[in-house]
Amino acid sequence: MDASEDMPLNIACFGQPGSYTYEAMKTYFAGKNILPTYGSHFEDVVQAVATRQARYGVLPIENSSTGGITDVYDLIHRYDCCVVGEKYVKVEHCLLTLPGAKLEDIREVYSHPQGLNQCRSYLKHHSEWQLHPYFSTSQSAEEVQKMGDPHIAAIANKTAAYMYGLDVLVEHINDNTMNYTRFFIIAADMEQSPDADKITLVLTTQHRPGALYHVLGYFFYNGMNMTHLESRPLKGRPFEYFFHIDVMGNLRNPATARVLRNLAEHCNYFKILGNYVSDQGGNVDEIRRHRG
Amino acid sequence: MDASEDMPLNIACFGQPGSYTYEAMKTYFAGKNILPTYGSHFEDVVQAVATRQARYGVLPIENSSTGGITDVYDLIHRYDCCVVGEKYVKVEHCLLTLPGAKLEDIREVYSHPQGLNQCRSYLKHHSEWQLHPYFSTSQSAEEVQKMGDPHIAAIANKTAAYMYGLDVLVEHINDNTMNYTRFFIIAADMEQSPDADKITLVLTTQHRPGALYHVLGYFFYNGMNMTHLESRPLKGRPFEYFFHIDVMGNLRNPATARVLRNLAEHCNYFKILGNYVSDQGGNVDEIRRHRG
Repeated sequence: MDASEDMPLNIACFGQPGSYTYEAMKTYFAGKNILPTYGSHFEDVVQAVATRQARYGVLPIENSSTGGITDVYDLIHRYDCCVVGEKYVKVEHCLLTLPGAKLEDIREVYSHPQGLNQCRSYLKHHSEWQLHPYFSTSQSAEEVQKMGDPHIAAIANKTAAYMYGLDVLVEHINDNTMNYTRFFIIAADMEQSPDADKITLVLTTQHRPGALYHVLGYFFYNGMNMTHLESRPLKGRPFEYFFHIDVMGNLRNPATARVLRNLAEHCNYFKILGNYVSDQGGNVDEIRRHRG
Repeated sequence: MDASEDMPLNIACFGQPGSYTYEAMKTYFAGKNILPTYGSHFEDVVQAVATRQARYGVLPIENSSTGGITDVYDLIHRYDCCVVGEKYVKVEHCLLTLPGAKLEDIREVYSHPQGLNQCRSYLKHHSEWQLHPYFSTSQSAEEVQKMGDPHIAAIANKTAAYMYGLDVLVEHINDNTMNYTRFFIIAADMEQSPDADKITLVLTTQHRPGALYHVLGYFFYNGMNMTHLESRPLKGRPFEYFFHIDVMGNLRNPATARVLRNLAEHCNYFKILGNYVSDQGGNVDEIRRHRG
């Protein structure tokens, strides 16, 4: 980022204050002077970036309750945006209440259906609570604040508690305590830094046996480490797949650039979405440990 | 299936009558005498099958609003179940109302947050409608029936309209008209038929460069067509991945069985989840066309 310190960075953030995406934005841009706007649809965020109303956008890309992750890749293509960074945020659902409310007061709980589902074991011990599905975890927190009823709780993260003036009554109530969501930081233009060590690309292979095998061969025989591979259906073309691939490398390295150029010639569609510094942790020590 | 015609087949179905999973069950077992029970969590369904309370289970496995598809694979492992079939169902959201209600009557709409999101373009034209997130599309239909208010509509499929005595006021209101959800039919024991042509397997590779490349080499050099590949994070071990792979073939073919045996020796973990007849269409002609 080359913005001067006194000019705030306009950021388009998916969701609303207190969401997991908001948390990703706050940690990624920690120490920067940022001016966020919020979009309730992926397309709002990507559009704001593509039209340069926002310098950067923040969106979930893996393991999110919002479901349509394929849509994020599609939108990044369609609006010709680039990935300039990534951030992992740990899913840590808490039970949030009005200040001073006690556990025995709770009668009703609001959250996104997946939030409710991820806390199933905890909620089993309170089977008398009435569960209310809601648009998102952070909107549930906001709604609990608005309703102002000490019998109503929300399942959301700590940041949402802070944003909406709620108490964290019970921490870490999700079943799986090692659940991370990955976020992309996007921009209208490619950014290249000497520190960048991860390349995200999308490609479609020719529809013939072994096509993907040959693609992976380019990485293998050139010593490039593939950290992620995912096939996603092509919209409107069932049974044809986009491949989303992350490989470690920097495009300024001539050998790396050459491998990708050669590979591109053997794909039906090939696009480098970005080359950026991989998220090595920060507040998430477990990630660092597992990276080895 | 070898059950005699007069004995009903006990089926554990995820969700409830009128859900997309229900539709998958009805089309997969069309003409069979079935006795369904319903589970509101993936684990209910897999457990019912593992303990043989149900002969078969039906669960979404790709592109579903329920989110936790990784969980389905995890549960199939954990309970040592097998995949014995698959079914594709087209996502066709409709606007459902009480019989006789008119479009100009509608003031409120219930659906799963993802259902609301998938019909975003349609709902934009009715921005005065109040949107209510709910547990699922089918439960939204049931709720609209219970409330008995002609001003309230649900977004769900046609089957839900039929199940809950609602009218289909507007058909096909989802933005993406070529959106399919894939379902697995599971059982406690492997079933092998001479007609089976698809093998689903899960594996983890050794954590070294090129490991996946070598795995795919087994398929390529043996002429096996891989139709699906997906990497899923290993629970509790961020940045290690399970690979879910579908390849065409029949385990009774000695060459196919040998390839898989050799491959297994080169994986940290390897399991054949099932060998079954691929879904070639039925009511979904588009699939057949695209299979080519």
